[in-house]
Amino acid sequence: MKYCPGCGSKLSLKIPENDDRERHVCDDCGVIHYQNPNIIVCSLPCYKDQVLLCKRSIEPRYGLWTLPGGFMENNETTLEGARRETLEEACARVEIHSLYSYYSLPHINQVHLFYRATLLDLDFSAGDESLEVKLFHHHEIPWEEIAFPAVSNTLEHYYKDLPEKIFPLHSADIIYTEDKKRSINSHH
Amino acid sequence: MKYCPGCGSKLSLKIPENDDRERHVCDDCGVIHYQNPNIIVCSLPCYKDQVLLCKRSIEPRYGLWTLPGGFMENNETTLEGARRETLEEACARVEIHSLYSYYSLPHINQVHLFYRATLLDLDFSAGDESLEVKLFHHHEIPWEEIAFPAVSNTLEHYYKDLPEKIFPLHSADIIYTEDKKRSINSHH
Repeated sequence: MKYCPGCGSKLSLKIPENDDRERHVCDDCGVIHYQNPNIIVCSLPCYKDQVLLCKRSIEPRYGLWTLPGGFMENNETTLEGARRETLEEACARVEIHSLYSYYSLPHINQVHLFYRATLLDLDFSAGDESLEVKLFHHHEIPWEEIAFPAVSNTLEHYYKDLPEKIFPLHSADIIYTEDKKRSINSHH
Repeated sequence: MKYCPGCGSKLSLKIPENDDRERHVCDDCGVIHYQNPNIIVCSLPCYKDQVLLCKRSIEPRYGLWTLPGGFMENNETTLEGARRETLEEACARVEIHSLYSYYSLPHINQVHLFYRATLLDLDFSAGDESLEVKLFHHHEIPWEEIAFPAVSNTLEHYYKDLPEKIFPLHSADIIYTEDKKRSINSHH
């Protein structure tokens, strides 16, 4: 971020009055341009004991499997976002249930939300960002080819909770240490 | 948003290829500048049967009471954000418990998260954005002077759940209709 989106003048990094960290401040109009984390809204589409995964046709993680999800848009709710992303990536219609898991990823300034969902019909297909969309039984899940740690973690919780059919909220922080080791720190 | 934050050239509103809505696209470098919802991280600081509220010293809702909270920052987790905001607004140290309520506010592109928390000591005081910080018993809550509907809703849930000491996750969408009427649509 180098130029003011409002007036086009140069931005400087400085700590504004009454603040405690550097922000992009316009040298001319003085407006402070904050940068904040984004929300990724996802669904866990279920059909009996199977779950629907999408094989990514885009980077990052081209060719790996993920749950349908993407950036929450302005002017929508989290539920609308999860439903929209499921339709876009898997051409699938779902009934959204409760929030099932969420993760903070401070190294990339994201919060991921996963909603349990039920497929309303089996008329799904690959959307623009998917190579293939497929239902998997537990023993078929391609654990070594899952695109993102939050997706693996959500699937692990799901198959632990499924026998009892009790689905409490799970949450964790996904942290990368300086030596690039990853840890998933559950909240409970 | 009128100028490209990357190169300073003019932006145009157009629908990029493979997209379905207008974005700010740079006429010169071609970069697409997405705009997405922000996360507000809050705590519900409890001490025995009392809760800690802050009287706002800033707009909007100057002089009204709220739970401590604010914009989640880059490079932090949701828990760190809720803890930080509680320290900044109420100079209060808390132990954060589970996520207790969350709300989508699509008219202002925000998602509000509220964490139940326990005050670690009674050494709290007004931070820069508060005129006053005070513990309230249930019968003392100034219901007519609460700053935000998500805060009122969270406090209502809390005092319903408190007798049983079972605190399930509550969630809702706060929607304004065209005639500016507000509805709080619970998810469950």
